[in-house]
Amino acid sequence: MFTIGIDIGGSNIKFVLLRIENGKKIKILQKKRIPTPEKKSEIIEVLKREIKNFISEKKNPKIEGIGIAIASPLNKKGDLILDPPNLPCLKNCRLAEILKKDFKNIPIVSENDVNCFTLAEALIGAGQKAKTIFGITLGSGIGGGIVVNGKIYRGAFGGAGEVGHTIIKFDGPKCKCGNFGCLEEYCSIRFFRRKKTTPRLLEKRIRKRDKNALEIFKEYGKNLGIGLSNVINLLDPEMIIIGGGISKAYKFFLTETKKEIQKRVVSPLSKKNVKIKVSRLKDFTGAVGAALLVNPKFQIPNSK
Amino acid sequence: MFTIGIDIGGSNIKFVLLRIENGKKIKILQKKRIPTPEKKSEIIEVLKREIKNFISEKKNPKIEGIGIAIASPLNKKGDLILDPPNLPCLKNCRLAEILKKDFKNIPIVSENDVNCFTLAEALIGAGQKAKTIFGITLGSGIGGGIVVNGKIYRGAFGGAGEVGHTIIKFDGPKCKCGNFGCLEEYCSIRFFRRKKTTPRLLEKRIRKRDKNALEIFKEYGKNLGIGLSNVINLLDPEMIIIGGGISKAYKFFLTETKKEIQKRVVSPLSKKNVKIKVSRLKDFTGAVGAALLVNPKFQIPNSK
Repeated sequence: MFTIGIDIGGSNIKFVLLRIENGKKIKILQKKRIPTPEKKSEIIEVLKREIKNFISEKKNPKIEGIGIAIASPLNKKGDLILDPPNLPCLKNCRLAEILKKDFKNIPIVSENDVNCFTLAEALIGAGQKAKTIFGITLGSGIGGGIVVNGKIYRGAFGGAGEVGHTIIKFDGPKCKCGNFGCLEEYCSIRFFRRKKTTPRLLEKRIRKRDKNALEIFKEYGKNLGIGLSNVINLLDPEMIIIGGGISKAYKFFLTETKKEIQKRVVSPLSKKNVKIKVSRLKDFTGAVGAALLVNPKFQIPNSK
Repeated sequence: MFTIGIDIGGSNIKFVLLRIENGKKIKILQKKRIPTPEKKSEIIEVLKREIKNFISEKKNPKIEGIGIAIASPLNKKGDLILDPPNLPCLKNCRLAEILKKDFKNIPIVSENDVNCFTLAEALIGAGQKAKTIFGITLGSGIGGGIVVNGKIYRGAFGGAGEVGHTIIKFDGPKCKCGNFGCLEEYCSIRFFRRKKTTPRLLEKRIRKRDKNALEIFKEYGKNLGIGLSNVINLLDPEMIIIGGGISKAYKFFLTETKKEIQKRVVSPLSKKNVKIKVSRLKDFTGAVGAALLVNPKFQIPNSK
């Protein structure tokens, strides 16, 4: 069983070729990364070309599905890309349908990238033992995804999991979305920019025993704890999995995040039991999740 | 099929006797309201006495279940009352188990009161056509409940739906729970108290064409819109049902709530399609929901 996973980001398009063995184990056979072109037609050209390359390579057997992850809300069916903030050229695009014209016999699905991230973590990452998982990615933006019993929960209209635009201070700084006080202003890379620094620079300063640098990370961790307390008070997931570039610095902020959760979550059982984990999977997680999504034969460990 | 529903509140205990006809229609046969005693032993005495009265009345046939609603987080199984803010004497009480000693042959279940409210709305109220419903009650506190396909969603540890303690301004006023900036400070009766007024007084002032009174309601509606935007961005329910005493004044604030939701929800499909309704059911909704919960024979219209 071979499937292709594609993750279309603002700067790169990532490709993986996946083999699923006995419906259980997965193996990544090939990886590729290509800069994202600016125009819609160019993006579609790149996708077609790379898919054709995968298919035509002699050593590759029949491809049985293509999954596409994209940083955008989609409709519930997952076939319409609604409004991707970092890829405006793909607004209202039915990308899977367009590609199907060239690859008629291969099932193609599209899905929000953080939903794919959370699915990958649930099926083959940190979340393999949990039934309800909230995934959150911390990077240039903040994304969220919900997986229940090994399946993505999309909500009534496909809009669930948008934790980046939950409000933690309604009169706070203006967000890219035009509103004020979104979590994204407090936990994306923009938090560090307002402090005129980056997570990497802060880490360097901490190694030089700069206490102020650690304080900035602590403030970041507290903000994240506020945002995740809202998630826990509403959804009460069994596990939260943190991914994205900023999560690599977790040892400097996660203690503060957990403290804030202990303070702010109402149910004593929820705050005692909820597990906060950092993503185990390396890069390409979104593409892997998309490849798993298209593969209905993959045996979901938690859905039995 | 006859069941008893009980709603234990900080000021009153409400009782209903319910008949379910053909597993579909419900009829409320009796209602009763008794002031809540202060001590745990007294509450248990009142419950036992009233249940016995229902059972022993000649015209009443066999009671087949008792459902108890209470304003508290419970464990996931629903048999342990964890920490009721307005009924501290029932902290860590296994109330259903205690009552079972006296009523051995009758199934008894307990459940969070707003979960019961939302279930009643989903099954026989405003939410009969919706598959995912978020219920919120606006009163001396703020409660929330989630019903998916006609069943209460409790979360991994029974703590889901606690919208009152989601944070909308982390440096806002101090909440009863000890934290700062909870939605409860902005949308419970405490909002009006800080303005040295009540919803009723405001309504009187509005009738006298006092524009400032309307402005206070508008501010309230905006706050509620922020809290509900967080719910929609995370959960994407098909419908939100608003209940509780303050909801009776909805015509003065709900337009502002909807405006805020249009501004703050990310997914264009979610904000276009989500329905915001006001509870159709009158008083005793929590007790009715509890009575429905204990009755597995009630045919859930949305779960097919």
